Amino acid sequence: MNSSMVRYILGYVLMIQAGLMMLPIITAVIYGEKQGIAFLITALMCAGLGRLMSWKKPDNDVFYFKEGCVSTALSWILMSVFGALPFTLNGDIPDYTNALFETISGFTTTGSSILANVEALSHCSLMWRSFTHWIGGMGVLVFLLAILPMGGGSRFNLMRAESPGPSVGKLVPKVRYTAQILYYIYMGLTVLEVILLLAGHMPLFDSLCTAFGTAGTGGFGVKADSIAGYSPYLQWVTGIFMMLFGINFNAYYYILFRQVKKAVSMKEVQAYLLIIFSSVAFITGSLVKSSIGFGKALRDAFFQVASIITTTGFATADFDKWSISCRTILVLLMFIGACAGSTGGGIKVSRIIVMFKTVVKELNSYIHPKSIKKIKMDGKAVEHEVVRATNVFLITYLIIFVCSVFILSLEGHGLVTNFTAVAATLNNIGPGLSGVGPTKNFLFFHYPAKYVLMFDMLAGRLELFPLLILFHPTIWRDMLKQRAKRVKDKVGK
Amino acid sequence: MNSSMVRYILGYVLMIQAGLMMLPIITAVIYGEKQGIAFLITALMCAGLGRLMSWKKPDNDVFYFKEGCVSTALSWILMSVFGALPFTLNGDIPDYTNALFETISGFTTTGSSILANVEALSHCSLMWRSFTHWIGGMGVLVFLLAILPMGGGSRFNLMRAESPGPSVGKLVPKVRYTAQILYYIYMGLTVLEVILLLAGHMPLFDSLCTAFGTAGTGGFGVKADSIAGYSPYLQWVTGIFMMLFGINFNAYYYILFRQVKKAVSMKEVQAYLLIIFSSVAFITGSLVKSSIGFGKALRDAFFQVASIITTTGFATADFDKWSISCRTILVLLMFIGACAGSTGGGIKVSRIIVMFKTVVKELNSYIHPKSIKKIKMDGKAVEHEVVRATNVFLITYLIIFVCSVFILSLEGHGLVTNFTAVAATLNNIGPGLSGVGPTKNFLFFHYPAKYVLMFDMLAGRLELFPLLILFHPTIWRDMLKQRAKRVKDKVGK
Repeated sequence: MNSSMVRYILGYVLMIQAGLMMLPIITAVIYGEKQGIAFLITALMCAGLGRLMSWKKPDNDVFYFKEGCVSTALSWILMSVFGALPFTLNGDIPDYTNALFETISGFTTTGSSILANVEALSHCSLMWRSFTHWIGGMGVLVFLLAILPMGGGSRFNLMRAESPGPSVGKLVPKVRYTAQILYYIYMGLTVLEVILLLAGHMPLFDSLCTAFGTAGTGGFGVKADSIAGYSPYLQWVTGIFMMLFGINFNAYYYILFRQVKKAVSMKEVQAYLLIIFSSVAFITGSLVKSSIGFGKALRDAFFQVASIITTTGFATADFDKWSISCRTILVLLMFIGACAGSTGGGIKVSRIIVMFKTVVKELNSYIHPKSIKKIKMDGKAVEHEVVRATNVFLITYLIIFVCSVFILSLEGHGLVTNFTAVAATLNNIGPGLSGVGPTKNFLFFHYPAKYVLMFDMLAGRLELFPLLILFHPTIWRDMLKQRAKRVKDKVGK
Repeated sequence: MNSSMVRYILGYVLMIQAGLMMLPIITAVIYGEKQGIAFLITALMCAGLGRLMSWKKPDNDVFYFKEGCVSTALSWILMSVFGALPFTLNGDIPDYTNALFETISGFTTTGSSILANVEALSHCSLMWRSFTHWIGGMGVLVFLLAILPMGGGSRFNLMRAESPGPSVGKLVPKVRYTAQILYYIYMGLTVLEVILLLAGHMPLFDSLCTAFGTAGTGGFGVKADSIAGYSPYLQWVTGIFMMLFGINFNAYYYILFRQVKKAVSMKEVQAYLLIIFSSVAFITGSLVKSSIGFGKALRDAFFQVASIITTTGFATADFDKWSISCRTILVLLMFIGACAGSTGGGIKVSRIIVMFKTVVKELNSYIHPKSIKKIKMDGKAVEHEVVRATNVFLITYLIIFVCSVFILSLEGHGLVTNFTAVAATLNNIGPGLSGVGPTKNFLFFHYPAKYVLMFDMLAGRLELFPLLILFHPTIWRDMLKQRAKRVKDKVGK
């Protein structure tokens, strides 16, 4: 373990965090809110500590995948720990555990909230809360990649650890450029959404916060009724952008470089759109029966489906009151999730495709035991390693899921509440059903359950292993050994 | 596809079924019930049809694994179709779909019932109903193996298709002897249980039916309150035998041949017992709080845990009223299931062990990317193929599970009802929670849901693939092609 390198990266992350806090500070200045002081204090703390940690560039710049994982996991934890401070310092969320829950929910783009009334928060806190989604959506480390001077291999190991989805394609040979292009696409889409929202007469503050929540597929809103109070036009814009942010960013890359055909023929994107449209068709059919007009039924169905499958979590209807079959579809969508290489969470469409192909392959092997066929996707054979990793991912996912549901059950809430609370956090969605439905919140859970759910949010966002690796004894033994060696070397001198 | 061979085997299966129906016929004679005539008619039909189908031994005795799977799946379907007839013929279950549901539930050792009041059934029907558990527990084909003259390879392919659990150990070189020894152990344990039940003053009829239900890990009882009405002694005997029938039969084989040390050191059995004892400890603790005595709390906890983990489904307490954490444990146990190589259902303890080891191995590979370690179990390296098959099994299991829950949801019952109904049938347990709790039954589902649940029961008992293979187009294309060829040959002559 190259722990000096990890420390160095964490230092940079804290300095970036300090910079990012300028947005809520500016907001506070504009609205003349004294709650902004808390952000100023925290930003100064982050900047100071970050500068100290990144003072000396380590001599040894060996940086393997495990260092990538550890840096990623610790960065996210550190950012959340400091990101939660202002909420407690300025009194908007007095309990620090609740503030931490809200911040982790923000950075992981989950959108599960412990707030009963968001409208009571100051503007600067609301802005920071939504901004965490935007930061978390693309990942701080990818941003770091775009600016930090590091070797190419180190960059790739960092990016692999943080990116959602099974495959990080190196779109262009240099990882640094990939990171930059991804950021440009991300920012471009965000700006486009803000413009379209402003065109529909949404106030600038709301537009920014909504766009941040959409882009990061987070789901924190600034109104108590989420997006339900806005006009149909604004709901359609938000809904369509949710869908767009759930598409594999490689598709946009292709389009950007005029390879539209390549983008259109991506199997994952096709499957993703197919799932969305068939779900919308089914739910619209079901809602029309309950005598709301076709237009509203279609809008509600599309918005909720796009919100759940991309794991955003905005709501324009209380889907906890929908029919059992519609609710079951939504629960299924929660698990499917968005495309790999998007900002969305969940298991990811490409993994689901690999799953199905694995089963078909197995059946074929029963019939033709000697044929050896590789699973294919987009015309290319899927590496055996990817198939294996997908299966292992699912199993790990299941184990974490089951253990979390069990720990939650100790608090005695309903089965559906526990089940969907874990589903909503592990898949980074936000709302669940029953006790954690779209009109409810997560405040009623006790501390142990809250920490389990925080773990699930982080595990979901970091795709399980980079977080789990922190619990591997070797990592800590390694770090302690190095520390001891450094101390010994110093004494030796 | 060697379809003549499949036909030949199915013929034998039907003749065996005719023989097995002697038990309810004798029961009818003893109790002087005219409902027995229905069994006589069905037995004659089975015998006649079976004789016809197995008249000519096929010249071509090539028999691969796919033939094994197809024969197995079709045997179980055929036995259920004919096994259900008497219930409808004698009016005990007038609706044939319900009778089929009950019979499949019997043969697959599920124990889910559509009967509101079992005590209204005639003795011969009750006896047949419980007997199906006993038959299904070991599998008809294993029985066939023990008596049918077939090549060794064919036998093994048949046995592999029917046996529960990932590994069919060839305990002794000849499959035929393995089958016989397994049957001796099975019968020996059943007889032992009947004797112990009789010693506790349970009537002979009840003892036989209860022992059949326990041995097959089925769960059909002859009383409306399952086992709750019997004395604590009888409950303990039944509970302990449920636990014993959930143990890998290889352990008994080792004990029989005085290799006790080998039996005791089986990791799967150890894990199985550990899971049982820790669950019992937790639930007892929870039940004691609700002010029932320690003795009853321990008995209730042990009985229900043993019943659910072995997927038997007998009940002595309405566990749907237990605390959420206890119910969550029971739902987890439903999925874990018994040991491989036992009569129990579920995912199986050995698969769960392989799952956990897969995750640990993955984490290690993050830390030491170049080390190649094999997963070990009982000191031996688990073949890569077994690990892969385990993962594929789980994924297929998940897909079937999700699709079933979705289809059930169309009928609009509660989420917990749908979820646990599928869990209870796919794992061959019997009762679920809420609408299908231990004091309820499956009658209220409509036909589509009932057929889905029947599919789940068969899929669960046959470990998914042998049943799924029936839906593979190649199988049918193959059969049709052969048929056409035979007709052509005949015309040619």
